[in-house]
Amino acid sequence: MFESIKKSAYEANMRLYSSGIAPFTWGNASQCDRDAHVFAIKPSGVPYEELSPDKMVIVGFDGKKVEGELSPSSDTPTHAVLYSEFGCIGGVVHTHSVNAVAFAQAGLPIPALGTTHADFCYGAVPCTRPLTKQEVETLYEKNTGLVIAEYFAENGIDPGSVPAVLVHSHGPFCWGKDAASAAYNAAVLEIISEMALKTMKLRPEQESIPQYLLDKHYLRKHGTNAYYGQNNK
Amino acid sequence: MFESIKKSAYEANMRLYSSGIAPFTWGNASQCDRDAHVFAIKPSGVPYEELSPDKMVIVGFDGKKVEGELSPSSDTPTHAVLYSEFGCIGGVVHTHSVNAVAFAQAGLPIPALGTTHADFCYGAVPCTRPLTKQEVETLYEKNTGLVIAEYFAENGIDPGSVPAVLVHSHGPFCWGKDAASAAYNAAVLEIISEMALKTMKLRPEQESIPQYLLDKHYLRKHGTNAYYGQNNK
Amino acid sequence: MFESIKKSAYEANMRLYSSGIAPFTWGNASQCDRDAHVFAIKPSGVPYEELSPDKMVIVGFDGKKVEGELSPSSDTPTHAVLYSEFGCIGGVVHTHSVNAVAFAQAGLPIPALGTTHADFCYGAVPCTRPLTKQEVETLYEKNTGLVIAEYFAENGIDPGSVPAVLVHSHGPFCWGKDAASAAYNAAVLEIISEMALKTMKLRPEQESIPQYLLDKHYLRKHGTNAYYGQNNK
Amino acid sequence: MFESIKKSAYEANMRLYSSGIAPFTWGNASQCDRDAHVFAIKPSGVPYEELSPDKMVIVGFDGKKVEGELSPSSDTPTHAVLYSEFGCIGGVVHTHSVNAVAFAQAGLPIPALGTTHADFCYGAVPCTRPLTKQEVETLYEKNTGLVIAEYFAENGIDPGSVPAVLVHSHGPFCWGKDAASAAYNAAVLEIISEMALKTMKLRPEQESIPQYLLDKHYLRKHGTNAYYGQNNK
Repeated sequence: MFESIKKSAYEANMRLYSSGIAPFTWGNASQCDRDAHVFAIKPSGVPYEELSPDKMVIVGFDGKKVEGELSPSSDTPTHAVLYSEFGCIGGVVHTHSVNAVAFAQAGLPIPALGTTHADFCYGAVPCTRPLTKQEVETLYEKNTGLVIAEYFAENGIDPGSVPAVLVHSHGPFCWGKDAASAAYNAAVLEIISEMALKTMKLRPEQESIPQYLLDKHYLRKHGTNAYYGQNNK
Repeated sequence: MFESIKKSAYEANMRLYSSGIAPFTWGNASQCDRDAHVFAIKPSGVPYEELSPDKMVIVGFDGKKVEGELSPSSDTPTHAVLYSEFGCIGGVVHTHSVNAVAFAQAGLPIPALGTTHADFCYGAVPCTRPLTKQEVETLYEKNTGLVIAEYFAENGIDPGSVPAVLVHSHGPFCWGKDAASAAYNAAVLEIISEMALKTMKLRPEQESIPQYLLDKHYLRKHGTNAYYGQNNK
Repeated sequence: MFESIKKSAYEANMRLYSSGIAPFTWGNASQCDRDAHVFAIKPSGVPYEELSPDKMVIVGFDGKKVEGELSPSSDTPTHAVLYSEFGCIGGVVHTHSVNAVAFAQAGLPIPALGTTHADFCYGAVPCTRPLTKQEVETLYEKNTGLVIAEYFAENGIDPGSVPAVLVHSHGPFCWGKDAASAAYNAAVLEIISEMALKTMKLRPEQESIPQYLLDKHYLRKHGTNAYYGQNNK
Repeated sequence: MFESIKKSAYEANMRLYSSGIAPFTWGNASQCDRDAHVFAIKPSGVPYEELSPDKMVIVGFDGKKVEGELSPSSDTPTHAVLYSEFGCIGGVVHTHSVNAVAFAQAGLPIPALGTTHADFCYGAVPCTRPLTKQEVETLYEKNTGLVIAEYFAENGIDPGSVPAVLVHSHGPFCWGKDAASAAYNAAVLEIISEMALKTMKLRPEQESIPQYLLDKHYLRKHGTNAYYGQNNK
């Protein structure tokens, strides 16, 4: 059962590995089946070379294991919260890619400094508040998801157009319509982060691009009037 | 028809891909046929692995498609303007290479800080002014080309000796006598950008090299008295 | 004799080589046999391509060669001291990986700025004091080990939970339960160092993460209540 | 004739290419035959993929071509001066490796900030004064060599223990007992440069290591009492 989402999750995990943004076992990708209220996720601490689709673990949106012999990724409760809270997403990816982590460790959002950013994300990539001592000590991974959802709700941000977040002192979580899309967004985020870091070195006071340029680039790639690619002829 | 320019455009696009300066589908190369007033360009949003010469799209200097099943790159109108305005060029390349983008996002030109730069470009690589709201909202890609041409005209810069520009908040466009040369220039620009960024970190007040050193290096590689390479024996 | 530790030392040395953290011959890995009071270590100045398990040199904890035709690594006395002083370790690795060396050359510890660090090391990666003129001129490599051990003893640091140190003006030494684990830690240290360097560029005044977050991450991967990986079902 | 030095020069040029420190055609290696007062050097502007030993050009210490169909590297007169002035060297290499060029463009020497540097070079890697207008306009490449030799003579530096220099606003020249050794030194210089650049970012005021540490590391690898490697048993 769940062959299809296991395959998608497996392929996204392998893509993380081959792209170099998840060294060692530091990354995980999941693919959900919204009708069944479950998702397939990487097992915890298993080297990428030893993965196969049937090793993916099936977990419910409540965070409880439904199927699979191995323990799921320790970040599983974060994925579960994101699927519950963000109804529009089908895949989630977590990495420790270096440049994105640098922003997370500095507790800074990644401002929209150019069109490469705007092609990918409709505004800054936000950084959450730090978790409290209590949130860390009890149900840490679940609280990580809740703090992400809290930030998006309180700031009125649509996860459908901002496909990534930095968890304070930790690193990025990304999402998309499926696991492949989430893995793509995680790779893009790392490039965006490197561009932003270098821009800020050249010009620390650099401001975000104006709203009309953000609109132009985001909307020419996304949404009903998009004219990038081959779907708009 | 147009087999030759399709092949040249295809090969330059694949060179962008293999050189790593155009991750994902973020780059495009074109090759023009000046006699026919057309150019061959990459189709929009097609992964590099799926390209072939016959998938290149033929477009007129007025920006209208002449031949091809696929939609051309969304940056096509910028290429069209550059071919119209810069009579000496035969190929155009656009990338989002990281270090060049950092300068574009900071809105800064790349000063001629050393001989590697001077071997490639006769003076600073300029950065355009930002496009206005109106220029972004109507005919954005065409206006991108016009703003480049405006900068070169107003500042009396010869596109034959300055083969690259940074579009403010966006990234580099490069050109050359053909698509292969434009792709080479795009790769060189990225290296020059990284050198400049690191030089400015070591010594933020570093000035451009003197005119006589710029002359020496640019002219030993380019122009009638060049003595670099095997064409001057 | 000592086939098993020679093989482990050989494999860890080759892992240093393939991971890119020990360019040229600038790195060495050793594996000890605690019962026999000896360790197997890389011969000095031999290119990685020419290594084989039988070329590893067997050395006693007193630093004297026990078996092998080649001269052992010039850093052998440092390894010997670490095995003597740190009873819990089974493998030692030394590299000149660029980002870790940058911290060592600056004489700065690597603060625990995020969870990637906390997953690996329980607190800052310390930097030793500089060696004195006399310590450098007489028994330099042995004194390097003694200065490391001195730092851990004086500051009450457990080498079982802090698996790396920076030797002032020199570079990192790492260790672990075996040579493979030490080589893994050396690769992780390089990533951690790059993350810290970039974080400090974004926010020079960035403080270490709070103790409760350090506890959470270190202890979910290490120790009796660890729940990362597949050993805790 | 000169088969042996052509082969050595060819192999060193290919090593530059495969190591990534000489992108495109931006680098050249030569090997001299001191008895014959000639050296073999890369032809100018020929892509590395098209090189072969028999394409190397033979040039006298006076800078005049002795044998070969192709034009020699435009940097040939610099090599010729170095062989004339530095009697102890057998190979010369020039590259535009990014981090070393950054120091050259900033007009700064690379201070000896750690033991990786000391293992390779006995003191700072110097940076020459800028060439004057007249030196650039007449016999530029020869004057480049003379300015290097002037710096070493005036500052009493031994090219036998300082195997590299930065030419102001240009980039590095390296040398060694043969072309292979010079190519190795060019690769090491690039790593040293990156380490120094990152150290200076972490701690701009960082001073050079003390003389006794420089002595220890340089002399344990070089000179009559060296004990690194397998030649000292």
